[in-house]
Amino acid sequence: MTIKALAFDAYGTLFDVHSVTALCDEFFPDRGAALSQLWRSKQLEYTWLRSLMSNYEDFWHVTEAALSFAGEALKLDLTDDKQARLMNAYLHLTPYPDVTSALKCLSHLPLAILSNGAPQMLTEVVANANLSAEFKHLLSVDSVKIFKPHASVYQLAPDTFGVAPHEIGFVSSNGWDVAGAAHFGFRTFWINRNKQPPEKLGAQAFRVVSTLHDVADELQKMN
Amino acid sequence: MTIKALAFDAYGTLFDVHSVTALCDEFFPDRGAALSQLWRSKQLEYTWLRSLMSNYEDFWHVTEAALSFAGEALKLDLTDDKQARLMNAYLHLTPYPDVTSALKCLSHLPLAILSNGAPQMLTEVVANANLSAEFKHLLSVDSVKIFKPHASVYQLAPDTFGVAPHEIGFVSSNGWDVAGAAHFGFRTFWINRNKQPPEKLGAQAFRVVSTLHDVADELQKMN
Repeated sequence: MTIKALAFDAYGTLFDVHSVTALCDEFFPDRGAALSQLWRSKQLEYTWLRSLMSNYEDFWHVTEAALSFAGEALKLDLTDDKQARLMNAYLHLTPYPDVTSALKCLSHLPLAILSNGAPQMLTEVVANANLSAEFKHLLSVDSVKIFKPHASVYQLAPDTFGVAPHEIGFVSSNGWDVAGAAHFGFRTFWINRNKQPPEKLGAQAFRVVSTLHDVADELQKMN
Repeated sequence: MTIKALAFDAYGTLFDVHSVTALCDEFFPDRGAALSQLWRSKQLEYTWLRSLMSNYEDFWHVTEAALSFAGEALKLDLTDDKQARLMNAYLHLTPYPDVTSALKCLSHLPLAILSNGAPQMLTEVVANANLSAEFKHLLSVDSVKIFKPHASVYQLAPDTFGVAPHEIGFVSSNGWDVAGAAHFGFRTFWINRNKQPPEKLGAQAFRVVSTLHDVADELQKMN
């Protein structure tokens, strides 16, 4: 069975969400890593909680709210100016070192991003990393007003590519996203960047790999 | 407007989920707090993720899966015997010191627990704390097969008490649960045991208090 299209998670998979740590550290010496970690974990929490509460707000607002909570919880003086500059940094996240070259190796397939990000955030972060030409589609949860791992998000990919879920390879570094996507029916490639155990959510990754280049290798083996 | 009934969150509100830390520490010296923290945060994550994935398993299984993940992530040798004893400790969580006496002060109202816990878990943890006589109802998400903060969970309380949501006082120490319950329409009392900033989820607590005794005081002021 061939994979006919690939969909990629964006944040944590293509783009390093912790590339904001340097700016966090500039504003709050020695607290940068703590701020970045809590910001990220609250951001995810809020996507799950708002989805379950049926109280959707887009990822830009959720990311801003998470930053604001993290600043208060860590008792940092997060002025409006600092908050604005950190949010702006989210539009300039650094792609992981394997991303640009690996995407070129995968360009024989139609590629999409399938992300929690608001449309404008995705357009900007992809453009700022010079990756706009690589993707045929930037698919945002914003069109269905609920976040991952809800099935209606993953459904955007088969609807857009016009192929069945099991013909789509879904690539993510977020273990919970891999579980959601596998449960939905994608063939999932988990780039286990942080060497984590698999999430125990009742669905396994199709392949567990270390870098985006391994995805190209695995696809070649399947042919 | 009078409050006609009270519903209480269980884990973290009435029962100290971190009272398992001592046993964690006995098994894994100096790692007890880390294990207990990661176990708890994964447990909550899994409730949210499984709910969004439409892949419900009851809270006992979710709690077991979270413990197993936490053990692996922290590279602890969590044998079957240790896992079984830690799970058993979850049926004997210690109530916070304010709980028993405060519940007596509130006994002029019908009281319920409204919890993620599986029915058998709730029955046992309440009985082991000698609190069975205090509650008219032990309401579990298991009857709706989705976890908090989904509205169908909170709906169990008005359905059971036969009163409107705004006539129910909902008591929780979990900020996200308070946000979900406030969004649903309860009057919420947030026992902010951990001195956290409010969660930025678009819904505010009706009252923020420090202990369960303060809830009785606040109710008295309203009459």
